[in-house]
Amino acid sequence: DVVKDVDESFIKTFLSAVDNIQIEKNLWELTKVPHMATTRGDEQTVQIMLKRWQDPETGLDQAWREEYMVYLSFPDPKNPNKVTVVSPSDTVLHTVREKEKLSADQNDTEVVQPYAAYSPAGHPKGKLVYANQGKPSDYKLLNQTVDLRGTIAITRYGGAGRADKAINAAPYGVIGVLVYTDPLDINDGRMSETDTYPHSWYMPPSGVERGSFTSQFGDLRTPYLAAKEETYRIPVENITGIPPIPIQPIGFEDAYKLICELGGEAAPAAWQGAFNCTYNFGGPGFKQTSVFNNSDVKLDIFNYEKLKNSSNVMGVIRGSVEPDRYVIYGNHRDSWVYGAIDPSSGTSVMLELTRVLGMMVKQGKWRPRRSIIFGSWGAEEFGLIGSTEYTEQYYTKLSERTVAYINVDIAVFANATLRASGMPSVQNVIFTAAKQVSAPGLDSKSVYDNWIQYSNRTSPAHGIIPGVGSMTGAGSDYAAFVHYLGITSIDISYTYDRSKTNARIYPAYHTAYDSFDYASKFIDPGFFSHQAVARTAGNILIRLADSLVLPINCSDYAESLEDYLKTAVDLYQHQLQAKHISMEPLKRAVASFRSAAAHLDQVIRTTDLANEIPLKVRGINDQLMLLDRAFLDPLAFQDKYGYRHVLWASSSAGKPTFPGLADAYANAQSSDQASDWDKVHDHLSVLSQAIEGAAHTLVDVI
Amino acid sequence: DVVKDVDESFIKTFLSAVDNIQIEKNLWELTKVPHMATTRGDEQTVQIMLKRWQDPETGLDQAWREEYMVYLSFPDPKNPNKVTVVSPSDTVLHTVREKEKLSADQNDTEVVQPYAAYSPAGHPKGKLVYANQGKPSDYKLLNQTVDLRGTIAITRYGGAGRADKAINAAPYGVIGVLVYTDPLDINDGRMSETDTYPHSWYMPPSGVERGSFTSQFGDLRTPYLAAKEETYRIPVENITGIPPIPIQPIGFEDAYKLICELGGEAAPAAWQGAFNCTYNFGGPGFKQTSVFNNSDVKLDIFNYEKLKNSSNVMGVIRGSVEPDRYVIYGNHRDSWVYGAIDPSSGTSVMLELTRVLGMMVKQGKWRPRRSIIFGSWGAEEFGLIGSTEYTEQYYTKLSERTVAYINVDIAVFANATLRASGMPSVQNVIFTAAKQVSAPGLDSKSVYDNWIQYSNRTSPAHGIIPGVGSMTGAGSDYAAFVHYLGITSIDISYTYDRSKTNARIYPAYHTAYDSFDYASKFIDPGFFSHQAVARTAGNILIRLADSLVLPINCSDYAESLEDYLKTAVDLYQHQLQAKHISMEPLKRAVASFRSAAAHLDQVIRTTDLANEIPLKVRGINDQLMLLDRAFLDPLAFQDKYGYRHVLWASSSAGKPTFPGLADAYANAQSSDQASDWDKVHDHLSVLSQAIEGAAHTLVDVI
Ligand SMILES: [Ca+2]
Ligand SMILES: [Ca+2]
Ligand SMILES: [Zn+2]
Ligand SMILES: [Zn+2]
Ligand SMILES: [Zn+2]
Ligand SMILES: [Zn+2]
Repeated sequence: DVVKDVDESFIKTFLSAVDNIQIEKNLWELTKVPHMATTRGDEQTVQIMLKRWQDPETGLDQAWREEYMVYLSFPDPKNPNKVTVVSPSDTVLHTVREKEKLSADQNDTEVVQPYAAYSPAGHPKGKLVYANQGKPSDYKLLNQTVDLRGTIAITRYGGAGRADKAINAAPYGVIGVLVYTDPLDINDGRMSETDTYPHSWYMPPSGVERGSFTSQFGDLRTPYLAAKEETYRIPVENITGIPPIPIQPIGFEDAYKLICELGGEAAPAAWQGAFNCTYNFGGPGFKQTSVFNNSDVKLDIFNYEKLKNSSNVMGVIRGSVEPDRYVIYGNHRDSWVYGAIDPSSGTSVMLELTRVLGMMVKQGKWRPRRSIIFGSWGAEEFGLIGSTEYTEQYYTKLSERTVAYINVDIAVFANATLRASGMPSVQNVIFTAAKQVSAPGLDSKSVYDNWIQYSNRTSPAHGIIPGVGSMTGAGSDYAAFVHYLGITSIDISYTYDRSKTNARIYPAYHTAYDSFDYASKFIDPGFFSHQAVARTAGNILIRLADSLVLPINCSDYAESLEDYLKTAVDLYQHQLQAKHISMEPLKRAVASFRSAAAHLDQVIRTTDLANEIPLKVRGINDQLMLLDRAFLDPLAFQDKYGYRHVLWASSSAGKPTFPGLADAYANAQSSDQASDWDKVHDHLSVLSQAIEGAAHTLVDVI
Repeated sequence: DVVKDVDESFIKTFLSAVDNIQIEKNLWELTKVPHMATTRGDEQTVQIMLKRWQDPETGLDQAWREEYMVYLSFPDPKNPNKVTVVSPSDTVLHTVREKEKLSADQNDTEVVQPYAAYSPAGHPKGKLVYANQGKPSDYKLLNQTVDLRGTIAITRYGGAGRADKAINAAPYGVIGVLVYTDPLDINDGRMSETDTYPHSWYMPPSGVERGSFTSQFGDLRTPYLAAKEETYRIPVENITGIPPIPIQPIGFEDAYKLICELGGEAAPAAWQGAFNCTYNFGGPGFKQTSVFNNSDVKLDIFNYEKLKNSSNVMGVIRGSVEPDRYVIYGNHRDSWVYGAIDPSSGTSVMLELTRVLGMMVKQGKWRPRRSIIFGSWGAEEFGLIGSTEYTEQYYTKLSERTVAYINVDIAVFANATLRASGMPSVQNVIFTAAKQVSAPGLDSKSVYDNWIQYSNRTSPAHGIIPGVGSMTGAGSDYAAFVHYLGITSIDISYTYDRSKTNARIYPAYHTAYDSFDYASKFIDPGFFSHQAVARTAGNILIRLADSLVLPINCSDYAESLEDYLKTAVDLYQHQLQAKHISMEPLKRAVASFRSAAAHLDQVIRTTDLANEIPLKVRGINDQLMLLDRAFLDPLAFQDKYGYRHVLWASSSAGKPTFPGLADAYANAQSSDQASDWDKVHDHLSVLSQAIEGAAHTLVDVI
């Protein structure tokens, strides 16, 4: 049936079929053992996915695995990484814990030692200094007081990317870096065993956040190429964005012992954390009154890199009317340890979606208008690798045919409210879906009504609406879809009441404590938030797959462009005029986009598309599907792998405006060189042309 | 009518309506005055196009102009470029003609002095040497005998690109270059006034080929950006691919006087031309017995560069069923002088097509299924500028919606046979069209049957068929469509019987003699070849615009890939194995493509698409339309502006195989450095992934 559209009664059926207990069972099954990428536990989760998606009664039309040979980094189980305090006479005065303190049932031999993936191996020894968050400004300030050559810097998580804490340090002669999570940043200040998990959701004293210490996504040795066995790999020495010096994460109980013994001047107030001592810079090294006086800190890092096979598990429900149009829904499968919240909360939700939808398909009760592809990505924790390799391999097909990508990684950070990021054009379908789902524990209130109380903004067109985040980061598997492919994307979860906690993320994040026990006791008892996320995400998915006219709104995109433009004009126009660089082409481009969007919206609103020839609605849907593709320029950010979307690329300038313009402007303003102002002009032209180009695609013929 | 398909009776009506006399009249009107880009004469042709395309009875649905501000190079009418022979005492012994010898009716004041566009101004003076075609190997050989520092080199056209004759010279210390057309290369050896135009089609002794001396297409200061008024322009000193030293073209009567006086050793046999003397290397300089003994040659070049507004004239016939699908048909409008053959023969044909089709549309007798866009490009002669800027400005829309581009520049080189270049996927529609058109002067024989006698090859699938050239060059306005956008393209004309002449091109090419008189007397008396080209090109155009299923054949593409692969394996596999670089991924990719193509062809053959839902045929047409897009990789040839198509990019290795592979291999073989073999491996991966990616797009869902 060529005019097949969303069936609201099917959506009701779907919503009521989504079951919290099933999600809980999924989570239990997925988190029995640690399942770090490419380990035995990871393979077990591959088998779980395949079994579920190939189930004759609740599976998909087809499911299979796809392998990539990717460059990973591991600690050596036979030579665990060590951090010690060593006296001048080479006596070991203190040894940092090698593993977290775990209860018997959590202490699987497969629990990986905390480490910094992609840290080089090495054995640096030097005087300790405290470098706050390891930002460029932190090292710069510290270096004014302390000669950093030959030192080991201890830093806390936050403020800078993981790898950057080492990358920023090396130019000052720092030879090794430690990183820990300050209780101020994660535990609302709490430090004791009794205040932390298993007694609360807070991070125990021995907890350590693992992570990938890279600033680039995708397999590091195969940029732009899918990492197949015989694919060309760049030499290891050409990899950029990884630590040039050894770095190791440690727990705050050990950080406390080191930091509170440091000598030297007191660090500024902004550098102080929750420990009950003054955080000093370090002499360098420990204070004279310390038992560690004159001692060095020594890192013994035995990490090694290896090419390993990582699997994506893929599944598909074939569309009935437009099988060549895809809605893609995905999450990674790999964890650092048990990964109950990250990522298995999302995988449990995905499995519940596929169970309900698969059952409907198998029973012949439903088949979507468009095809739905599910992806269970491998090796995300090492740098979004599985999803990125997938987009590299299928680049052309995906960019020609994909309507949208939906990502649900950590489904539930906390139980307070929905949180969504997405292109402006899909905010409305998120709202529509969220209005139809009851908020967990609040039967009379919708997810939408609850959300708007926690986060909102005033839109010129729509009045007060929930705040939807923008897709500027590379925090999960949407990155390659957004930045490399220019596919309209959505990322959702349930999250905190920020008035109740300052934790930068849920405290068990990337620790061995992120377990089924933790999730079911402290994150989402009863799994009602999981259920709400499953219902909301599933509703969005069904609407994108079934709507006759895609629920993608180009006028909402125009509103964001106008916001960006206003900020850019406010911040830059005066100075650019002085440099004889005109912002008029950008203004004209945004105005063209607005007017083309308004016209297309009017056509959609005023045409009885179900009674037009089917090619009419297909043409309009092509315009909506391809809208984000128009904002790609493969040459706009040539030094940043994978960033091609001129509106959502990463930016270091930190302004709510066009990212490349903000960065180029900041750079030119700081150097004031003519060639840097030229780069601003160049990027303005790139940007104006992309936006004009997008406006052209909203016009039907010429 | 959603199943609208090609109407064979409409094609018959069209073919009989195409009128040779109308074409002749068009040519006469277009060539009244010189119409070099951005001159008054150019503006007159803009007005002609607009008037025709806006005609209420025979015009298009809409026509308009689009302007770009582009970087052009001109001689200074007040300071004409001079080439002189100067004695040691500074006496001028000989002055080269400044203008061609023209009859009164051709001697318009707007005839531009022969010059090398983009040659720098300058006044080099030095001893003359003869450097054959100015290839790298020519200068290398010459330098073994003569110290080239401070010399002026005279070269003949052919063998190397125009700009390359100067670019290749500069590293040897050559300070100026002359270029002329040897009678051997253009006139089958004839040199006398009485043997040449106006007595025959051959180039008169004072004739000079003008040209753009650039090796890059598009506006030189705005790569990747449409050259609008406020667009960022790269600094002039960053332009690459233009002559670093002054260069000037001269006629062969002057070249004769210079070359036959040269001293030094005799040049090799392959360097000898048609002059009745031995071509010597030069002492450097003239021989002792010459009146020019000890004299220098001096160039006084006053060229200047300027930003000027150049117009494209655009027109459209809106499609009735799929208005959002475009077939684009174009030719440039600007000439060097009168430009009767180049480009006005093509423009006359285009105007006849639009007259016939426009009339049918205005009378309500026909409207194409898809939209047809006509482009009359500006400033092609300076480097395909108008068409390139157009593709930059509308990049996204054009790549999403364009079915094919048809280029007819010089419509008739000569009267012998059709010549066609195109992607392999459109050879069949060219054949179909050519079979329906009578060959000029041969009423009983089709263009196709005539063509196959002049050029043919044996295809494994089709047996003996005419030879269709591949789109590897950048010789006319198809370049940006093929290389930058990856749009399936066709370029056709009528051409020589190669057994009758060795002329490298028709002899009046880029001279002031390329006039209506020349064209109507010596190139196509009666304009029957023009008519045959108009009928063939129009037939192709109608078929691409009207066919229910696009006449684009993916299996014919597979045949070309297999040819390329076979050559690559024969040439490279042995050596690559020794370097541990596997060609298996490339072999698998080509096999995947073949099998996906065969399957799609079978679906097309065995499905009654007119009775399927319209989205089924639209989906298949999308696959066919987008096939060439899959072969684009914006990073595959980063140092070559605009080249993104991994199969048809320009190559210097000169092998009938994958161009990037051939070049990378040649480079690695010559250096034998590991990093160069890495580049071969890298490109093999790029290529294999692109071909696999193209194969994926031929599969309907997964
Ligand atoms: Ca890769
Ligand atoms: Ca340009
Ligand atoms: Zn995650
Ligand atoms: Zn994670
Ligand atoms: Zn031409
Ligand atoms: Zn030309």
